[in-house]
Amino acid sequence: MTTAVIIGTGNVARHLFDAFRVTKSVKVVQVLGRSQIALAFFKEVCETAPLTGAIKDADIYIIAVSDDAVIPVSQLLKLKNKFTVHTSGSLKAGELHQPSRKGVLYPLQTFSREREINFREVPVCIEAEDPDDLEILKAVAGALSDRVYELPFSKRRQLHLAAVLVNNFGNHLCHLADELLRAEMLPFEMMLPLIRETTAKLERITPREAQTGPARRGDLKTMEEQLKLLPEGTYRELYDLMNNSIKKTYAKDV
Amino acid sequence: MTTAVIIGTGNVARHLFDAFRVTKSVKVVQVLGRSQIALAFFKEVCETAPLTGAIKDADIYIIAVSDDAVIPVSQLLKLKNKFTVHTSGSLKAGELHQPSRKGVLYPLQTFSREREINFREVPVCIEAEDPDDLEILKAVAGALSDRVYELPFSKRRQLHLAAVLVNNFGNHLCHLADELLRAEMLPFEMMLPLIRETTAKLERITPREAQTGPARRGDLKTMEEQLKLLPEGTYRELYDLMNNSIKKTYAKDV
Repeated sequence: MTTAVIIGTGNVARHLFDAFRVTKSVKVVQVLGRSQIALAFFKEVCETAPLTGAIKDADIYIIAVSDDAVIPVSQLLKLKNKFTVHTSGSLKAGELHQPSRKGVLYPLQTFSREREINFREVPVCIEAEDPDDLEILKAVAGALSDRVYELPFSKRRQLHLAAVLVNNFGNHLCHLADELLRAEMLPFEMMLPLIRETTAKLERITPREAQTGPARRGDLKTMEEQLKLLPEGTYRELYDLMNNSIKKTYAKDV
Repeated sequence: MTTAVIIGTGNVARHLFDAFRVTKSVKVVQVLGRSQIALAFFKEVCETAPLTGAIKDADIYIIAVSDDAVIPVSQLLKLKNKFTVHTSGSLKAGELHQPSRKGVLYPLQTFSREREINFREVPVCIEAEDPDDLEILKAVAGALSDRVYELPFSKRRQLHLAAVLVNNFGNHLCHLADELLRAEMLPFEMMLPLIRETTAKLERITPREAQTGPARRGDLKTMEEQLKLLPEGTYRELYDLMNNSIKKTYAKDV
């Protein structure tokens, strides 16, 4: 049995906590957080404490807070010679304030309060400075997911960047589309079968193969007319940028 | 029983043909196409002819070819006083060469050869110049889908543009992410649970609500470092453009 302390009370912390609860090999013995209200979620089944409070003994300390809070939060924690990891895709293990035994447990997923996640299929990327700690981390990550990857920082941050493109920018494209539809009193719901199919295709073929649309076909007339339909500024810049990039991607094909 | 002739042998034509085959209210009596090889797909169960061949009598003629082929193909067809529609999101009904009885049947979906589509959930947008023809079109569209929308050109083209953003550009974002991953020898497959979750969220909440990531949080440090990781040119321009657009979208929120 591996024991863990979770530091943080946000979506990642909650989903980790829930996922550990159904495993038999990892036990969360304490949750630390800034907000008493957020700690209430954990209080019924687990000890809780403020960030500056007394920390229980455990095999691993998991700092599950937003990227920009990792360093300040790690500075607050009174941990000495304890194995401490963060859950960020974009920070080095070394950025933790602890003097030694640092690591990373990065789950590649977007977590929201209201949605359950099947953690077993989430890629979990791990890294540890110390070989013994790496064994602890493998056990912890393996208790969560069937897809554990030991990755150095250089690969992890590229993965996080790819996730920003796919998830954050992909979602924002949907928002921009939603705004266009609202202006015509059309419901975004009309897009859902298309979105489902767009992503379902990627389960079987590469995005390069899946590409369709005016830019892929070289349909200049449609592109000219669509550009004129768009508001000036962001929309037009984006339209040109993406179409040119698509054209460039397939220019090598004859 | 409504009779139909399909003009075209590509993905849209095939999927329409398959969808009509399982209905009892619409019968495809002929398929016209340029390519004898492509016509072979239809030949076993239906009469076929070249584009300039003799056309059978039918209630509706559906030109299901790519946007840039609609006008030239419609010019080839010897149709007189016949109800003729195209399946394009970006063209007016009036662009058809036929002198009268023009219309549109636009299915809002991306069709690929290898994937089956549940046509009943695909939004089908219709338009017809003549009220009697509109009744024919309603019957035909209703035989295909439970989601039939009668929309003027101004709304249909905006819908098509939104679909380009969501589907074509969304897919290209995935390709750009794939290229970043390949450079680090990471498999695109690692992105799939994230992609599934990103789109599943949109079934319940708006894209505006679903937004996460460094730009949404105002995490300047992560954005600065990610920008430096990207190749110059398209990637960096896209990164700045999308992040600025996300920041602008949420700047109104306090």
